[in-house]
Amino acid sequence: MRYYLGGKPLTRFDEALKRLLDTVKPIERTETVPITEAGYRVLAETVIAPFDVPPFDRAAMDGFAVKAEDIAKASPENPVALKVVGKVLAGDEPSHLEVTNGICLEVATGAPLPKGANCVVPFEDTQRQGDTVVVLKSHRLHANIDEKGADIKAGETVLREETLLVPAKVGVLAGLGREKVTVYARPKVAIVATGSEIAKPGEPLKLGQIYDMNTYTLASLVKQHGCEPSPMGIVPDYETSLRDTLERAIEVADMVVFSAGSSVGQRDLLPRLIGEQGMVLFHGLAVRPGRPTLAAVVNDKLVINLPGFPTSCLMMALVLLVPVWRKMARLPEWQPQSIQARLAHGVHSPEGLRQFLTVRLKNWDAGRGTQDEEIIAESAYKESSTITSLSHADGFIVIPEEVTYLEAGTSVIVSLF
Amino acid sequence: MRYYLGGKPLTRFDEALKRLLDTVKPIERTETVPITEAGYRVLAETVIAPFDVPPFDRAAMDGFAVKAEDIAKASPENPVALKVVGKVLAGDEPSHLEVTNGICLEVATGAPLPKGANCVVPFEDTQRQGDTVVVLKSHRLHANIDEKGADIKAGETVLREETLLVPAKVGVLAGLGREKVTVYARPKVAIVATGSEIAKPGEPLKLGQIYDMNTYTLASLVKQHGCEPSPMGIVPDYETSLRDTLERAIEVADMVVFSAGSSVGQRDLLPRLIGEQGMVLFHGLAVRPGRPTLAAVVNDKLVINLPGFPTSCLMMALVLLVPVWRKMARLPEWQPQSIQARLAHGVHSPEGLRQFLTVRLKNWDAGRGTQDEEIIAESAYKESSTITSLSHADGFIVIPEEVTYLEAGTSVIVSLF
Repeated sequence: MRYYLGGKPLTRFDEALKRLLDTVKPIERTETVPITEAGYRVLAETVIAPFDVPPFDRAAMDGFAVKAEDIAKASPENPVALKVVGKVLAGDEPSHLEVTNGICLEVATGAPLPKGANCVVPFEDTQRQGDTVVVLKSHRLHANIDEKGADIKAGETVLREETLLVPAKVGVLAGLGREKVTVYARPKVAIVATGSEIAKPGEPLKLGQIYDMNTYTLASLVKQHGCEPSPMGIVPDYETSLRDTLERAIEVADMVVFSAGSSVGQRDLLPRLIGEQGMVLFHGLAVRPGRPTLAAVVNDKLVINLPGFPTSCLMMALVLLVPVWRKMARLPEWQPQSIQARLAHGVHSPEGLRQFLTVRLKNWDAGRGTQDEEIIAESAYKESSTITSLSHADGFIVIPEEVTYLEAGTSVIVSLF
Repeated sequence: MRYYLGGKPLTRFDEALKRLLDTVKPIERTETVPITEAGYRVLAETVIAPFDVPPFDRAAMDGFAVKAEDIAKASPENPVALKVVGKVLAGDEPSHLEVTNGICLEVATGAPLPKGANCVVPFEDTQRQGDTVVVLKSHRLHANIDEKGADIKAGETVLREETLLVPAKVGVLAGLGREKVTVYARPKVAIVATGSEIAKPGEPLKLGQIYDMNTYTLASLVKQHGCEPSPMGIVPDYETSLRDTLERAIEVADMVVFSAGSSVGQRDLLPRLIGEQGMVLFHGLAVRPGRPTLAAVVNDKLVINLPGFPTSCLMMALVLLVPVWRKMARLPEWQPQSIQARLAHGVHSPEGLRQFLTVRLKNWDAGRGTQDEEIIAESAYKESSTITSLSHADGFIVIPEEVTYLEAGTSVIVSLF
């Protein structure tokens, strides 16, 4: 079965996604941010250790810093007595203290090793008697010492460019004394809602108007996936307004997403306008919902026109644009959280179209505990135009092109919103 | 085998986590934020529809608004001609236009249904001839009309309290005209680094000093899991400084996390101090690394003392505190991204201790593409004190208490950082 949009055959989902990913380039712009803001950003420099780590020889245990030769033969049968002449704690500068034969210093874990010492005997192998300590066990040269540079040598590469700065790696930057770090900029995604009937939330609704949902859904999703939303407001369906907005959006952003105006109806000027300005990658997808989706390249930038119906708009953004945003942002592929469930009822799906069906889950508590009963998925989809298709939905299932019917009771993987 | 800390037996990991989760309470404070900032916040109100959705009867397709009785018998054999007296687009206010018998209006999808009309005939069932349209197919009363309130009725509950505001739900708020929304506040987590040897990144390092890593690792992790970090700086190991900081931290935050000072060594005043101020839940865990971890309740607030070594600190925060932070923040349980890998080498693990081993992955490209070769996990762990145990690590594996050895080649689940 073949489907059409305005007389042209539809593009299959996989082919459309491939064209987008082949077209889009990872961001090249970088910026320098404090490490406190660097979590989950992508490193745009190679981080080299500016000093040895640890920066000095230090005690790896609480005990006594000694000369190894003094205790080389120590044992319970052959205890070795040493004079304790002081104590070095972590953070101390023991430059005035020195260990010589017959003499030792008490040291705490992390304390710099005093001059002359080449071994640390842990407390448990000693007995303290006033100013004297008796060592009951021998330890080899350098035992229980973290040597200067043993962890990292000055000049070594510690983190490579393109590393995702998860909390552990933010800590690594701090450990090297870094206050700031250069990361890739967040790609800017311009978001434009179009339609003379669209009103801004917070403003009163006139007869014939409905509120803009897509700007907010898209902006929230754009942020989640490492990009920066640039909302451009609501633009009425007039050619000059749309053209001006497209020009401005291309100037300020790395990519532009329009919602609405993409079917082949009355006021659908936008597809024609985008087509005139650049090269169309596809217009019309073999999917449900989301058929009118259009993608083009204008001035070397990706311009997407998503359908205006909220469910269609969100679903296409999730499955088609999230991979694009993440590639631009240099983030790893997204694995949405998913759970297994059983279909409550049979679901028909048109042959040749990939269906993305929003579902609501039963016996599921959003991961706030465990459940014993089997999780059940039922369709949350009424019409693409409805709010309840989203407000009732916990996630979605994907029905491949070749599947025309899923029986009640089929086990399905639900990708959570 | 039993292990001890300062002569006391260790608490098992599961028991420790249970005590923490039994103690900590979900946040009650709420705040009102613009919906553009509401993504991934937790709803603290019940959202009721303030008006019918759609707010008016509207055309569900592009076509002609007619009186259903006029076209009740239309067919290719019995075409019905109607006079087209105007056009209504989405966003128009058609109050001056009316459909009567023999007359129709062209309508675009989303346009308000003109007075008198009770059916929309789609374009494809018609032929246009100048001012006249010929209808070739009958449609029932109310066909192709989204009726006022069909999606949501005014007064209906649309989103329940405690809903996680994923992008779809942010869109729902917008669709109801909401500019702002009341969400649960992000619990404040005070973070204190202790130790006289600890220096702030960006400042020059004196002999005997190392840079603070834990404040940054913890702050980044706290943010990721829905809480707000309140870094309290670096506090030297003096009783008065520690006591003052504890008091201040408890005042400003919902929970306090100290790093370092929790073993039973030289300057470890902190456990004693916390113990004096409140009720200790546990001190000493049967884990590796992280044994000296302490938890207490002071002034009804959870106070945690994590070990100072960066790997120990991060691992304990990940496995023990993330569930606590998420419960406080009312977020669903965390499912860390994970992958299956084969161990490169055998790993010993002490019986009775749960080991969290940082590993580095081979044949793995951080999800930036697909790999054909099997993914191999090798220990990234040198010492808890080293930076490379973190900088080289991609994630960690958990070795249960009863397992003492994992053979080379064992299949393991790696939780990614």
